[in-house]
Amino acid sequence: MSIRYPLETPCVLIDTEVMQRNIAAMAAVAAKHGIKLRPHAKTHKLPSVALRQVAAGAVGVTVAKVSEAEVMAAGGVRSIFIAYPLVTPGKIERAVRLSEQIELIVGVDSLAGAQLLEETAARLGATLQVRLEIDTGLRRTGVGFEAALGIAGEIARLPHLRLTGIYTFRGAVLSGKPTLDLEAAGFEEGTLMALLAKRLRAHGHAIVDVSVGSTPTAAYAAAVDGVTEIRPGTYVYQDRMQAKFGVCGLDDCAGSVLVTVVSRPAADLAILDGGSKTFATDVQPGTQPLQLVGFGHVVGLPDAVLARMNEEHGMLELGPEAQAVDLKVGDQLRIIPNHICSTVNLHNEVVMVQGDKFERVSVSARGMLE
Amino acid sequence: MSIRYPLETPCVLIDTEVMQRNIAAMAAVAAKHGIKLRPHAKTHKLPSVALRQVAAGAVGVTVAKVSEAEVMAAGGVRSIFIAYPLVTPGKIERAVRLSEQIELIVGVDSLAGAQLLEETAARLGATLQVRLEIDTGLRRTGVGFEAALGIAGEIARLPHLRLTGIYTFRGAVLSGKPTLDLEAAGFEEGTLMALLAKRLRAHGHAIVDVSVGSTPTAAYAAAVDGVTEIRPGTYVYQDRMQAKFGVCGLDDCAGSVLVTVVSRPAADLAILDGGSKTFATDVQPGTQPLQLVGFGHVVGLPDAVLARMNEEHGMLELGPEAQAVDLKVGDQLRIIPNHICSTVNLHNEVVMVQGDKFERVSVSARGMLE
Repeated sequence: MSIRYPLETPCVLIDTEVMQRNIAAMAAVAAKHGIKLRPHAKTHKLPSVALRQVAAGAVGVTVAKVSEAEVMAAGGVRSIFIAYPLVTPGKIERAVRLSEQIELIVGVDSLAGAQLLEETAARLGATLQVRLEIDTGLRRTGVGFEAALGIAGEIARLPHLRLTGIYTFRGAVLSGKPTLDLEAAGFEEGTLMALLAKRLRAHGHAIVDVSVGSTPTAAYAAAVDGVTEIRPGTYVYQDRMQAKFGVCGLDDCAGSVLVTVVSRPAADLAILDGGSKTFATDVQPGTQPLQLVGFGHVVGLPDAVLARMNEEHGMLELGPEAQAVDLKVGDQLRIIPNHICSTVNLHNEVVMVQGDKFERVSVSARGMLE
Repeated sequence: MSIRYPLETPCVLIDTEVMQRNIAAMAAVAAKHGIKLRPHAKTHKLPSVALRQVAAGAVGVTVAKVSEAEVMAAGGVRSIFIAYPLVTPGKIERAVRLSEQIELIVGVDSLAGAQLLEETAARLGATLQVRLEIDTGLRRTGVGFEAALGIAGEIARLPHLRLTGIYTFRGAVLSGKPTLDLEAAGFEEGTLMALLAKRLRAHGHAIVDVSVGSTPTAAYAAAVDGVTEIRPGTYVYQDRMQAKFGVCGLDDCAGSVLVTVVSRPAADLAILDGGSKTFATDVQPGTQPLQLVGFGHVVGLPDAVLARMNEEHGMLELGPEAQAVDLKVGDQLRIIPNHICSTVNLHNEVVMVQGDKFERVSVSARGMLE
């Protein structure tokens, strides 16, 4: 355990070589199937990383918020999909303004939402490109299959909206339940959406984009005939959740959190200077389908478990192997978090690591919640 | 449900009148017992709020990080306790520099940690004021009762450290287990620490400060003879967790999250524009001892449950009463989060609300993890 980074902790490290490998690998998946890759920027929240993805072949990025889109556009990204319903005049107006500068596509998932988009677009004399969100089982935003045709018909009647695609977010879900069978899940997701696109086209809708797939399912959904675009996010850094899914190995995780041992109150316990304000808690240990043990994978100490956290304390329980290492106060450890997206979101900066070079980079779209 | 704030969402609202009432109430608790109040700034992370607490009688603030201490000092706070072990030369040097400008006290919880403080203080020709942290049952940082006397003796031999107090953090724990009996928990916490202080003084240690108490136990621990200081944090805004403890009513919660309904996919379901990047997930529903239902209390809709979240989606399940309200896409709701401290930590800004005046304030110590 002789790692010693010249950095104060806790901080997020991004191994840029591993990241670049991940970027290239997903670009190759899209290229192989001749479809578009539009990564979700929720993971990195950094225009500079988005531009690396574009340089590798991505058509642009996906975001959830208009404020994130503004950060990405200011950073040089020329095509952005806001995969989220905008329902207030202020945000819609910002989207219209942005659409005058770059290619912008906006999600819509209800007739009420479409009418709100229409009103503001009409007032500003603009036309907004929209995609209809389909609920494929998560029961959050999105319309059901049966309702899709009717709502598409209503949207088509709104003169300031141009419906060019459909999209869904689903994750590792098969027949409505969490699954570890990613191939079946991706195939089902892609097939459902391709069928719906066919049906909409049969009714005269010019559905160009059929956009699916998250990191666990993207490679399988991409193979389905009729799918035109995938939107994985986490793959850029990968994380412990994806490794447990089997999407990647732990060596493919470009993101980790560097922490310091601040106390050794017992032989089987080390206290770390990172807790729930450093490691996200949205992916809880011991839940379906992954049953992760603890809040992260401790690199080099497989039987150490980040079992509990308070806001600034991480309680690391040490098994026999970890106890044999004789961790000392001041020692550093690297931990691959369960969920890198929400973990990066807790940090004002990440440290880009290339060999022995370190660069602190402000996470410029962090906290862009509007 | 006719609230309509002229704000884009999601955002954190702070009702300044309620906050000021909370500040005054806790100051009165300390004054009544003739002891010091040193609020933990982890909740608000704002120098301007810290100065309100000082104006109401607080002696200064408590923080967990040297970077937070720097923000508070730059904002005008003149006495700061870093209640956390500093174990790296870089951070200790920053603490020494700060101690040349303001009254600074640093936590220590091990001989190894004390020696690290000593080395840097000696190198810089400074003396650091320290308090010894005692573990009263949380099994994180802190030394046990039996070890305290020995470590205090070792610290006393280090020429550049001055041991002036002891402190603990415990929360609502009684005899080692989570409890709702806050009076017994606070009494036990205060009594244990007062007894230890007596014992240390009997061995020649000039223990001035006996610092205890969090929001749930502060009022009871403050009443124990021998306690000299309380360090509650959450009370400044209060939250749903504290209301469930019975520490306050829901009307005393100064902090809430304003969200917008973005989709109404079913009669019993509304989708909100705030998920796990808006509401903290460190206090999970359905856990001991509080058994909170969902991730927050929806103001005005008691049978609506924020049952699930993704990163940017909150799934609000509506009971019969909430269904009767006929929520529409675009409607705003106010939600009191389970845990306000970690929720504020997700936001770059909060909105201070006074009557119909709104002021956006940058949460300047947010993400100060070093």
